[in-house]
Amino acid sequence: MKALVTATLNPLTLELRSVPDPSPRPDEALIEVHATALNRADLLLAVRRPVGSPLGLDVVGTVLRPAADGSGPPAGTRVAGLAVNNAWAELAAVRTNRLAVVPDGVTDTDAAALPVAGLTALYALQKAGWLLGRHTLVTGASGGVGRLAVQLARLGGSEVTAWVGSETRGAGLAGFGAHIVAGYDQPPADPVDILVDSVGGDVFSSGYQLLRRGGVATVFGNTVRAELRLPADWGHARPGVRIEYLFLLDEVGRRDVPADLALLLDLVATEKLVASPGLLTPWTDPQRAIAALHSRTVDGKVVLSM
Amino acid sequence: MKALVTATLNPLTLELRSVPDPSPRPDEALIEVHATALNRADLLLAVRRPVGSPLGLDVVGTVLRPAADGSGPPAGTRVAGLAVNNAWAELAAVRTNRLAVVPDGVTDTDAAALPVAGLTALYALQKAGWLLGRHTLVTGASGGVGRLAVQLARLGGSEVTAWVGSETRGAGLAGFGAHIVAGYDQPPADPVDILVDSVGGDVFSSGYQLLRRGGVATVFGNTVRAELRLPADWGHARPGVRIEYLFLLDEVGRRDVPADLALLLDLVATEKLVASPGLLTPWTDPQRAIAALHSRTVDGKVVLSM
Repeated sequence: MKALVTATLNPLTLELRSVPDPSPRPDEALIEVHATALNRADLLLAVRRPVGSPLGLDVVGTVLRPAADGSGPPAGTRVAGLAVNNAWAELAAVRTNRLAVVPDGVTDTDAAALPVAGLTALYALQKAGWLLGRHTLVTGASGGVGRLAVQLARLGGSEVTAWVGSETRGAGLAGFGAHIVAGYDQPPADPVDILVDSVGGDVFSSGYQLLRRGGVATVFGNTVRAELRLPADWGHARPGVRIEYLFLLDEVGRRDVPADLALLLDLVATEKLVASPGLLTPWTDPQRAIAALHSRTVDGKVVLSM
Repeated sequence: MKALVTATLNPLTLELRSVPDPSPRPDEALIEVHATALNRADLLLAVRRPVGSPLGLDVVGTVLRPAADGSGPPAGTRVAGLAVNNAWAELAAVRTNRLAVVPDGVTDTDAAALPVAGLTALYALQKAGWLLGRHTLVTGASGGVGRLAVQLARLGGSEVTAWVGSETRGAGLAGFGAHIVAGYDQPPADPVDILVDSVGGDVFSSGYQLLRRGGVATVFGNTVRAELRLPADWGHARPGVRIEYLFLLDEVGRRDVPADLALLLDLVATEKLVASPGLLTPWTDPQRAIAALHSRTVDGKVVLSM
């Protein structure tokens, strides 16, 4: 089969190469891949592994051969799920406890935008807990995870402030349910119960200081790669505050991924959640996808179709 | 009645003055006070209020008049509890949902070391969750809360490292159940599941970086009054990590204080927990207590007897 593997690491380039077909373990289904996505995590993982390594976490396709242990959906079922650095290929072996059935109304490319980004947004909000009537501030709100977090927080009954780096990046976020769309230099007037952050640095610090007592900050990234700095009264000024770090590839080991992914897919099928990619490109042109992610110009996910 | 009130704020001095007897609300019992304690929180609260204000959180004494609403223990019962800036007096009105009965085997002065410090240690560990088989690192381990946190963590089945500012301050902590007693410049060889910190600054930062994935840092103070600083990989290097800030006077509103304080008192009565004060002084000499707390030379609590 053909697969995308790393050709150079700095700068990161990929090339289509012929590789052996996967040999699924007993708990893995063999998937014919229709679409995948490019995540920031893929870029981080790519440079830590030798040149020639396969990549890819988000996978959407059809079950060619169900898992030998009898788990998971039967042959012919359209599924979405989380692969382990092997999604950017014509065929992928994927653990059935990382797969969910894609409802008819959901396109392959919409479904491919969901596993990494949707589960990250979902778990970030679940770690915060109660949403109804609370005020949620989402940083990096125009990004792949951010747009989904804004929508999920709103669906859960939260008041949502979408924080973005510039006015142009805020376009469309009101349509996704954000009550307030503002730049990082414009703090919302009301204090915040929940902060969902992946930017880090000054943006995290500013958002954190808007938290009220008992507030929760869930962090799942540090785009600016800055140290975490908070003033000396970081705790005393907001008793009961909690900061949690979410790393999806660790978190999924403690979660029911098929059920959680099914929830997200169902929300898309019922048109409550918009997952459409910010950039859709054929997998034969991965450089365009990488460049787009690096330049941070894409609103939403970068999806590759096979 | 007589009460200690602030005479000057900078430096903080107290004086015994005649003040009106308290008028308990329906849910408050009137207590004849036998012993109280001096906490760092008292010093912080003192300077925020006008000269002449009463103070004091920890209270131990006998119920003179039970609460009018029928709640709480009957007259003559020896109780310990949390007052609201009114414990340093001959009489104190205390909410019955902040009181517990003192068992016969527990002295007044031991009981007075428990409400603020014991509940802080207990809730800090409860926020971390599971203790059995985990490794807990306690900073400021020789202080009033630290000594109790070391003991409670050990009683809960945790391996305990007691971190202290100097070798002399570590004296006795092995006897309280610490497996390792070490200075802040000596990190334990094994990673840590739970960090209990009230020092802040570099000590917090060093302790935090010993946490393993899924670890929890519970912070209840910032003795050095430094900003919080962590390196850029603070989250990614330990997925699922959680930082919580505990402010006792806020936390008690969400807790069953009578039951939690009864647990602590019972542990003292059954000789599983040592609460004996590090300094015991008559309440007519509060300056000695203040000086001792300021100089950080006392191991354990500073208790005042009436």
